[in-house]
Amino acid sequence: MTKIVDDPETFAAAALAGFSRIYGRYVRLVKGGVVRSTAVPQGKVSVIVGGGSGHYPAFAGYVGPGMADAAVAGEIFASPSTAAVARVCRNAHCGGGILLGFGNYAGDVLNFGVAAERLRAEGIDVRIVTVTDDVASAPADQHLRRRGIAGDFVVFKVAGAAAEAGLEIDAVERITRHANDRTFSFGVAFGGCTLPGATEPLFTVPRGTMALGLGIHGEPGIRDAEIVPARVLAELLVETILAERPVGARRAAVLLNGLGATKYEELFVLWGAVETLLQASGVDVVAPEVGEYVTSLDMQGCSLTVLWLDVELEHYWLAPCDTPVFCRGETFRTEPAAVRPGTDDEAPVFGPASSASRESARCLAGILDAMVSALSEAEIELGRIDAFAGDGDHGQGMRRGATAAREAIHQAVAAGAGARSALAVAGDAWADRAGGTSGAIWGLLLRSWSSAFSDEAAFEDADVIRGARIALDDVMRLGGAKPGDKTLVDAFVPFVAALETAKADGLSLKDAWQKASATCRQAAEATAPLSPRLGRARPLAERSIGHPDAGAVSLALIATTIAARL
Amino acid sequence: MTKIVDDPETFAAAALAGFSRIYGRYVRLVKGGVVRSTAVPQGKVSVIVGGGSGHYPAFAGYVGPGMADAAVAGEIFASPSTAAVARVCRNAHCGGGILLGFGNYAGDVLNFGVAAERLRAEGIDVRIVTVTDDVASAPADQHLRRRGIAGDFVVFKVAGAAAEAGLEIDAVERITRHANDRTFSFGVAFGGCTLPGATEPLFTVPRGTMALGLGIHGEPGIRDAEIVPARVLAELLVETILAERPVGARRAAVLLNGLGATKYEELFVLWGAVETLLQASGVDVVAPEVGEYVTSLDMQGCSLTVLWLDVELEHYWLAPCDTPVFCRGETFRTEPAAVRPGTDDEAPVFGPASSASRESARCLAGILDAMVSALSEAEIELGRIDAFAGDGDHGQGMRRGATAAREAIHQAVAAGAGARSALAVAGDAWADRAGGTSGAIWGLLLRSWSSAFSDEAAFEDADVIRGARIALDDVMRLGGAKPGDKTLVDAFVPFVAALETAKADGLSLKDAWQKASATCRQAAEATAPLSPRLGRARPLAERSIGHPDAGAVSLALIATTIAARL
Repeated sequence: MTKIVDDPETFAAAALAGFSRIYGRYVRLVKGGVVRSTAVPQGKVSVIVGGGSGHYPAFAGYVGPGMADAAVAGEIFASPSTAAVARVCRNAHCGGGILLGFGNYAGDVLNFGVAAERLRAEGIDVRIVTVTDDVASAPADQHLRRRGIAGDFVVFKVAGAAAEAGLEIDAVERITRHANDRTFSFGVAFGGCTLPGATEPLFTVPRGTMALGLGIHGEPGIRDAEIVPARVLAELLVETILAERPVGARRAAVLLNGLGATKYEELFVLWGAVETLLQASGVDVVAPEVGEYVTSLDMQGCSLTVLWLDVELEHYWLAPCDTPVFCRGETFRTEPAAVRPGTDDEAPVFGPASSASRESARCLAGILDAMVSALSEAEIELGRIDAFAGDGDHGQGMRRGATAAREAIHQAVAAGAGARSALAVAGDAWADRAGGTSGAIWGLLLRSWSSAFSDEAAFEDADVIRGARIALDDVMRLGGAKPGDKTLVDAFVPFVAALETAKADGLSLKDAWQKASATCRQAAEATAPLSPRLGRARPLAERSIGHPDAGAVSLALIATTIAARL
Repeated sequence: MTKIVDDPETFAAAALAGFSRIYGRYVRLVKGGVVRSTAVPQGKVSVIVGGGSGHYPAFAGYVGPGMADAAVAGEIFASPSTAAVARVCRNAHCGGGILLGFGNYAGDVLNFGVAAERLRAEGIDVRIVTVTDDVASAPADQHLRRRGIAGDFVVFKVAGAAAEAGLEIDAVERITRHANDRTFSFGVAFGGCTLPGATEPLFTVPRGTMALGLGIHGEPGIRDAEIVPARVLAELLVETILAERPVGARRAAVLLNGLGATKYEELFVLWGAVETLLQASGVDVVAPEVGEYVTSLDMQGCSLTVLWLDVELEHYWLAPCDTPVFCRGETFRTEPAAVRPGTDDEAPVFGPASSASRESARCLAGILDAMVSALSEAEIELGRIDAFAGDGDHGQGMRRGATAAREAIHQAVAAGAGARSALAVAGDAWADRAGGTSGAIWGLLLRSWSSAFSDEAAFEDADVIRGARIALDDVMRLGGAKPGDKTLVDAFVPFVAALETAKADGLSLKDAWQKASATCRQAAEATAPLSPRLGRARPLAERSIGHPDAGAVSLALIATTIAARL
């Protein structure tokens, strides 16, 4: 249970700041992450990793020569924002392109994905490899849909070594993807963890039992079982991993990872049995690691990871590296990096804008004012709805994001920005401050919508409708949700369709919007399922029957609020 | 809570074996410990550390170039046996003498102390430095009586660096002692740990509170307090440590240590506040470490350690080292050590013995038979008495130790050993198998008693009585207990005095022994105190009122058993 906290809201940032103070010889703190503080050769591919906080040494502890160039850190168990990913990447990039590595979670896929698009637009060659090692989370024929757990460590080790060796980005990407394809993990949990500031654990495991395949954020596993002796647990882990052994695979990098409160001595006892079983199956264990490499705060449990080596992968697995938590081979003679002009916290600079477009921006700022009022009023109700199926923080996140967006757009208006630029910075501010998946979605939504506007002219009705379509397409493409997944998309698709139809039928924007808002409200209500759903946390799945999706509800609320102002 | 266990009885040994399999590039397993597997220069001082298991990386994780040469590992939270200490030392010694380092606990002081005497008798120069850093365990003017906690890490780091630099043993001892004199720790616990195989925690801390100064095995602290925010906790830790800041001390090696379930992110949050406070007090923090360096299984809590540096100490604190858990500076180019003839598990070789002495040995073997019967019968009752003030394992330990001693003496008799040698190996077997303080005491008692006998002649009555006095003196000198401490000594002192008086009064050995046994029984009963006692675990202190000391009771039982056979 987390006990050492000042303010739960700033816990993750305070932890990262404290980490950076200790390990200044490895890292330099930037907002939302850390980058290497030692000199990196110009033109080297930057390996940049990240995800939610609460998994130390993932991810900041991996930064150093031979492994990662930077790490992005979100709030506890929540994806970093798009802006944070982009910011850390800009700070770390050395001209050789960027390989982004992270575990396969919706929020991370979205935020890293959107950040990658933004960086590519700036001319940086960005590649993405998501780690998908958790065999409990999807069947073998869908391995790219699996979640990423302790396999992060071995995949990033290989990626970092390939980049350190001076390979070009195509090769680094290929090798990293190859490493992920050959990495398999399986874990068990004995007990839950407690988020900073919470008084109750995030989940519990019944006394005397273990949850097989439970995820590192408490995602549901395969089944519960009675706790077994160490040698039987070893059999369970080894057999599960060997079931997907590639043909001809013999040599393996192996990681036995503790989740936080399952301690070293227990892992060593287990290791004795695991190694014996692997050897009996003809596996040559190469430079194994046993310890805490991807934790989940103080969760009790462990996982076994195997990376099936070939000559190339073995070379990079064994290559030297030197990070706060992991040294291998000869250490590096490092020099402090030259001081770089900070790319943190720059006030946005706006290009010239016509007075008509500036007037449109003022109009958008007024809409943001109304959205903040509506979301503040609805905050508790949105949280209540979200709590049936999620963390219950949706109302808080929406209010926080909209408030940040309003501040940003008013500043932009004051600085003379046009409609396009003003809405774009509002979206960025929303994503950066709200956090989580819904923050990223709304940031993307606003920014994509803004691309239908310009800074030269006032926006027309047609621009607004075109913007809606662009926003929907981007949200679906980058967010990965489809209609029926019980997300905001379920309400957004009919909204945009209704808007387009009504406008084509010759209605005014105001009337079309009002009609579409009504459609949107109905669709949001229809997200309340009538039967149990698969996926996500078990007791919650049942409790969510008959309750609509909070994201769809807030979209309908915002659509309705805007309708009243048009 | 410990969940990954095969057999609780062999947990510590299995953990050490698993550890050795992973870290074969650093260590080689010997019975009861690990020694460096890399070549060490002949003549280098060997720094050998140890204590109970359950504190990883203490102590096996400290073995490697620049730090320790070997580590001895007892059962969970229990001192290694004298034989284990001696065995590991013999395996590691390179001709330069041995510095033994361990935390100040009665069992360790006894076992390492007796082992040191034995090694000195073999011609090895052995020095002892006990670590006494826990400011909560004794006042400042009695700092050498304090317990050793996370200060172990910093003191052993300095000791290892001094030895690696090639200093001679006088200098290594002086510097290590100096480091200990300038090392201060203070800790808090939020929750207890669970021993392998136990279903309940060793102790608990009431929800919402923290125990200030609680020891790493659950020894009582100073007081309980409500849990406070991280910055207030930082003040508490820093103020307590600074209260004993030596005059003029400015530069400090600092360690913020997690006990097991208080995780990295929490420690990083706390570190930010701790470092700020230290800097505000004019302390220059030098190469701080934050993480898990001395754990207590899955105990929740943390401690702050400060080693006040001078030029010499700073040099050794910053010197390179390379161990399984801690790398600093340039790594070492190491080579595997040459294979050494094993010194494990050698069957004892006995010198020539007269038939009279061999007959005496047979008589002693018969006495051991009777002791085993009596102790087996009394095992549960002795455990029950022990449970009022201790772990409740006294009966089990005595039965196990006596059984091992009986086996050893019968083997010795079969191998033709004389009385002196036979009783000495019986004592060694007792200490090696029983574990804990009482095992060490009984091993010492038998071995010391044997020194009054010879392998040339049968023992006389006078030899038996002289042996009793030697055994008592050694137990008091090396065990450190005085009459009134509620230990076996309370019954042993009057026993030996009565034995000597009765013999001086002209009684036969049988009559003298019977008289002394009666005195011993009375004295054992008198160890049941009539009022609450200070020290040891709080709730237990009250429950132990009116119950005698289990060690004194078993001495009386054994004395009475022997009386019936004389």
